[in-house]
Amino acid sequence: MAFRIGLGVDFHQLGEGRDLMLGGVHVPHTVGAIGHSDADVLLHAICDAMLGAACLGDIGVHFPDTDMKYKNIDSKVLLADTVKLIAKEGYAVVNIDSTLCLQEPKIKPYVPQMQQTIASLIGITEKDISIKATTTEQMGFVGRKEGVVAYATVLLQRI
Amino acid sequence: MAFRIGLGVDFHQLGEGRDLMLGGVHVPHTVGAIGHSDADVLLHAICDAMLGAACLGDIGVHFPDTDMKYKNIDSKVLLADTVKLIAKEGYAVVNIDSTLCLQEPKIKPYVPQMQQTIASLIGITEKDISIKATTTEQMGFVGRKEGVVAYATVLLQRI
Amino acid sequence: MAFRIGLGVDFHQLGEGRDLMLGGVHVPHTVGAIGHSDADVLLHAICDAMLGAACLGDIGVHFPDTDMKYKNIDSKVLLADTVKLIAKEGYAVVNIDSTLCLQEPKIKPYVPQMQQTIASLIGITEKDISIKATTTEQMGFVGRKEGVVAYATVLLQRI
Repeated sequence: MAFRIGLGVDFHQLGEGRDLMLGGVHVPHTVGAIGHSDADVLLHAICDAMLGAACLGDIGVHFPDTDMKYKNIDSKVLLADTVKLIAKEGYAVVNIDSTLCLQEPKIKPYVPQMQQTIASLIGITEKDISIKATTTEQMGFVGRKEGVVAYATVLLQRI
Repeated sequence: MAFRIGLGVDFHQLGEGRDLMLGGVHVPHTVGAIGHSDADVLLHAICDAMLGAACLGDIGVHFPDTDMKYKNIDSKVLLADTVKLIAKEGYAVVNIDSTLCLQEPKIKPYVPQMQQTIASLIGITEKDISIKATTTEQMGFVGRKEGVVAYATVLLQRI
Repeated sequence: MAFRIGLGVDFHQLGEGRDLMLGGVHVPHTVGAIGHSDADVLLHAICDAMLGAACLGDIGVHFPDTDMKYKNIDSKVLLADTVKLIAKEGYAVVNIDSTLCLQEPKIKPYVPQMQQTIASLIGITEKDISIKATTTEQMGFVGRKEGVVAYATVLLQRI
């Protein structure tokens, strides 16, 4: 088929002594996301959506958090690898829409830089990578500032 | 490209002294959704999915909850504005699928009226707007009846 | 239109004395999912995504949990029925991407069998049904092992 869709969801705890990396961009904040890699929840959701659309497993299959190779790795490297994996299957990204669920900080000022970073890695234009944000209205673990969640949906087309 | 996809997620707390507006319809209930606007979680998720698919930012960018213009506003106005925004970009809705996560009340009797309301605002048929519902099986903030969540996915096509 | 998209989300509690059925496969574990049917959260999310894309209501409309006919029913039967319902509307599945959110156990060894089971029921190839998994990093009701969540997105095309 010409088109395929994917959906990625990712979760990371927030804690002290870590940078908050979101969409490949360092967002200054009092806490950062905890993980084996740089814990960029947005890039992970995007990778997972792309891998899922191409039926290539998930981020845990390709970049296991038990592998020291990926310790504190820049998730932009994982996204670049994901782009290669889907290209090898004959697919390219049509568009991506994503949502960051976090109680704070406001990420709006960083969105253009995130779009630029992601678009450049995937080889799409900035109009093909949408990044939205919402709080959870103080509810649940996101509302208690214990963690962040990201959703990403992707449309692929056969090259 | 001819097609684009989007995904919206929205959250609102439930509380006394508010109407429960869902999909543009008043659903009689003991509590309502809390927000700056009428807090219609389903319409907000749909707006966000449409804005995301067209890469036009999110509902918070277009209708900020710090703007008194949107205080207690009917979210049907926001949806109508969103339809204009995506039309201006050259897109129309193919179909929307949505899910309301709420512990109570049962919304099934109100679904046809919600579909009619939304279809009419977007200029699609009722067969192009799907509204599903699920509880979270008593788990989490939705299960404790503290709040509601809505997911919406949309397929756009170039006009 | 030629294409339609859908998104399903499902939730089930975990508890003792139940089998853990995921994607039509029995996954050996200390607890299982609780529900009126066999509580297969992944198959339910997939059914809901398919029904939503075809605008046919939701799993609760077609297979009500108040109907003794569906007591402890194998959810593979519900998926087979869903396939018939969307075929009757003139649609077939292009691809499905899904994510299981659960803290444990690791489901990776069971994914190929789940893909085979689902592909065979829907009449697609195993490359058209993607199953991903993630923990919620110990957060929320999934992190506390109280329950499981599944997301599924589907692309349909007119036959």
